[in-house]
Amino acid sequence: MNNSKNEELDRLFSFFRLIDREKFIGRQTYLTDGNRKENDAEHAWHMAIMTVLLAKYANEEIDVLKTVTMLLIHDLVEIYAGDTYAYDDAGKETQAAREREAAEKVYGTLPKEQGEWLKGIWLEFEAQETPEAKFARTMDNLQPMMLNDSTNGISWVEHGVHLSQILKRNERTHCGSEVLWEYAKENFLMPHVEKGHIIKD
Amino acid sequence: MNNSKNEELDRLFSFFRLIDREKFIGRQTYLTDGNRKENDAEHAWHMAIMTVLLAKYANEEIDVLKTVTMLLIHDLVEIYAGDTYAYDDAGKETQAAREREAAEKVYGTLPKEQGEWLKGIWLEFEAQETPEAKFARTMDNLQPMMLNDSTNGISWVEHGVHLSQILKRNERTHCGSEVLWEYAKENFLMPHVEKGHIIKD
Repeated sequence: MNNSKNEELDRLFSFFRLIDREKFIGRQTYLTDGNRKENDAEHAWHMAIMTVLLAKYANEEIDVLKTVTMLLIHDLVEIYAGDTYAYDDAGKETQAAREREAAEKVYGTLPKEQGEWLKGIWLEFEAQETPEAKFARTMDNLQPMMLNDSTNGISWVEHGVHLSQILKRNERTHCGSEVLWEYAKENFLMPHVEKGHIIKD
Repeated sequence: MNNSKNEELDRLFSFFRLIDREKFIGRQTYLTDGNRKENDAEHAWHMAIMTVLLAKYANEEIDVLKTVTMLLIHDLVEIYAGDTYAYDDAGKETQAAREREAAEKVYGTLPKEQGEWLKGIWLEFEAQETPEAKFARTMDNLQPMMLNDSTNGISWVEHGVHLSQILKRNERTHCGSEVLWEYAKENFLMPHVEKGHIIKD
């Protein structure tokens, strides 16, 4: 093994050790047993499998590997920037700036070429312009909705979430997949509006 | 949306809800903070990212999406069969039969076509014949080794693991990547033999 390869592997493995911390970043979604909330790594794993099986429902054809990669890494900035809850308006204001700074630190750990490549995929996700970015966002919104439905809406109840908030947050969920957004509305949201777990307004 | 599509989505989402249980399956590897052990979903997420960045070190060219998919799903059988620790010889004896039965249940939840496709990828992993299966196994062995190294070898110490056991378990790790196996031996194993965390025999 020559030295440059060793140096590259040293940096790659430094990155792999760093991103282990993604497993410590808690989200607001309860797992299906209703006892524990999920973390960012679990969330990303779940969406990656969903993408492999749901890609054919995308509005536009997507590069599945790119979309999966995007979802696997899209929350890594939270290692330094923390998780911002979907309905935390104050946190949302500073989120973009905090996450850009975090991206420099996280992806700066990698060898230059790979770091720029992954940071580019993250920026593509943030920009929401490509079919892959749109579908990834659809997954990012649907997966917690599915879990909230499975746990009788406790996360919505805990936070006193209004339907208008959910619909605003999801105003672009259909851009990745009309079919999946319609399915989610009908199966994961409306039953909980009926039951009062989501406040109708 | 026509009825058959709805039925397909119902089955797909049943599968997505079922596999949430992967997050409850504990492993023997400590996370980098040394406080908590990781679960199967976190482990799979970690290896999927590693694969995207390490694919070029594979002995033979690999289909990255297939390898990532393989790693994302390869432990799903443990939802019904449980995790078998690498050095649990009694558990190892019944593992194959338990896991085959579990595979029928897990993948049987999916629509037929997708279920057979994913079960096929899992069987390909188990058979260890293709470049993708070999590289996936290399990741499956390297990722916990990296974490054990990061946590001062506590998992090896807790289980009183001997070097000969590790080398036997890893006798095919080089089949996926000679370079990565050499790197891992030098950086993740040997320092802990020196320190006595792994018992030299």
